[in-house]
Amino acid sequence: MKLEQITLPIKEDLERVEEVISERLKSDVPFITTVTHYITENGGKRVRPAILLLAARMAGYSGPSAIECAAAIEFCHTATLLHDDVIDKASLRRGRPSTNARWGNHASVLIGDFFYCRASEMFANSDNLKVIQLITKAMRETTEGETLEITKSNDLCITEEEYLKILHAKTAILIATAAEMGGLLGNVSEEFVRSLKEYGTSLGLAFQLADDVLDYISDEETFGKTRGIDLREGKLTLPIITALKQADPQETRMLKDALISEKLEESKLKEIISLIQKLNGIDYTLNLAQHYIAKAKGSLAVFKNSIEKEALLNLADYVICREK
Amino acid sequence: MKLEQITLPIKEDLERVEEVISERLKSDVPFITTVTHYITENGGKRVRPAILLLAARMAGYSGPSAIECAAAIEFCHTATLLHDDVIDKASLRRGRPSTNARWGNHASVLIGDFFYCRASEMFANSDNLKVIQLITKAMRETTEGETLEITKSNDLCITEEEYLKILHAKTAILIATAAEMGGLLGNVSEEFVRSLKEYGTSLGLAFQLADDVLDYISDEETFGKTRGIDLREGKLTLPIITALKQADPQETRMLKDALISEKLEESKLKEIISLIQKLNGIDYTLNLAQHYIAKAKGSLAVFKNSIEKEALLNLADYVICREK
Repeated sequence: MKLEQITLPIKEDLERVEEVISERLKSDVPFITTVTHYITENGGKRVRPAILLLAARMAGYSGPSAIECAAAIEFCHTATLLHDDVIDKASLRRGRPSTNARWGNHASVLIGDFFYCRASEMFANSDNLKVIQLITKAMRETTEGETLEITKSNDLCITEEEYLKILHAKTAILIATAAEMGGLLGNVSEEFVRSLKEYGTSLGLAFQLADDVLDYISDEETFGKTRGIDLREGKLTLPIITALKQADPQETRMLKDALISEKLEESKLKEIISLIQKLNGIDYTLNLAQHYIAKAKGSLAVFKNSIEKEALLNLADYVICREK
Repeated sequence: MKLEQITLPIKEDLERVEEVISERLKSDVPFITTVTHYITENGGKRVRPAILLLAARMAGYSGPSAIECAAAIEFCHTATLLHDDVIDKASLRRGRPSTNARWGNHASVLIGDFFYCRASEMFANSDNLKVIQLITKAMRETTEGETLEITKSNDLCITEEEYLKILHAKTAILIATAAEMGGLLGNVSEEFVRSLKEYGTSLGLAFQLADDVLDYISDEETFGKTRGIDLREGKLTLPIITALKQADPQETRMLKDALISEKLEESKLKEIISLIQKLNGIDYTLNLAQHYIAKAKGSLAVFKNSIEKEALLNLADYVICREK
């Protein structure tokens, strides 16, 4: 199922989110308006806003704060992407020159700050202290996760547990926050809020694990993503962490050599991918992603059936379907 | 009068602020604890916390939120310094290698984010919506000011008005926020809150203008600051903006050549400084700073005499005395 089909029940809300996004990015400083427009016109899947809107409706809330918070949580996500681009020295983002490649690091840093500051302002204006306390804690933890990731980026002995801890902090927490915030806006009981948070956490982990797998098996034409980028960048993700755990000494050396190499020939890349496949790295990661999807869906069991619940269940499947 | 003498009435509060600063910078990620410790052990004048604490007491408040907010506003300031260092490619900060020089841009970006996220969390936990709305707006405006500054950094036609607008946004707003927040914590009438904000705004402008002058006339041994750094970096500040306004065509060319040069010989630097002095750039800026100091002091007229008011008045003089 395509994403637009899944989010059909909140189509109008998502359109209002786009309007709020465009409105809140206006600034008296023309450069800010130009750069933020460049970034947002290229879209993004708006997964976090969709989750927040669906969770809020499932929790019985459909007031204006959901639209504002949905736009703001997308800004938080965009802020982290902009700062990531400085850290990774990324030249491309969503198929176009990244902000730092086009305008320099100062633009990525300051426009990233602007996205986050504007988001903070929007959350503050929700007048909802629980919402504000939730998002500020989540953003601090996300930043800690990103920092942990860079300090572990060359640690070839990283364990699955450590890796999942990083995924949880840098990706899952913000997605969980989107779901939890919907519950807070609905002002429902702790049990329901916790279930939404668990849904988001599991979905977030599955989302990132599926991304890790996609990097190894994606078909460029279908997904617009080149194969082996993570490997070329020496990025340690679960497929290779799993493979390293199973590898004999000679295979371990091959994998480590590939991870520390400045350049990887196409033939070498294919060989390494085959090796990771042979050592069960890809299937293992895919199975774990599927496990989290099942867990995410299970978390919604406390809610009665509704079109919003149906959409959240379909969204969980979508995360895995992307790479089939 | 030395800063420690001025802030003597709040000595114990400032010590508690240091404790909170140290406590709130602890993280499960060891790298964050290391880098934030490196940054804060080197101090800083803690001008913003002092203003907040004095304003709060003058507004009749001495509860725990003032300490927490004072530490958090210092974190906001530190976050902007860290991101500035990435933008300016600064190698030194307060006489030691800057965070980006020592650990790389990624550290400055992420640790800057951590400082701001932690501050947001602390403000959120104040449970005071007015405080949260004040600081989030102020930080968004500060970011806009910094962005405006970089887009204007090569505009040799910048007017005094535009320059002051940048100073206001990038420096004065956060200092004004420190003062205003003290009033909000005291929950006093709008008239008093506004007066505190005006005090902080004028003080912030004077502070930055005095800094601009200091760069041209400082004695390295007394102030630990090399003369002419702004000029060497081609930074347009009010002394040179004023000089450009008064200069004849030949002098204009000399000033512009100096601003766009990759390297400036010591003899050339001295010549340019003399020219700026002759064209009244330094005295004019100093007079404007003094004007704002008088304005800052005048803003406090609505408050009865107290040791806190005395301290805020002395703090205003301190800003100017630095460069005498």
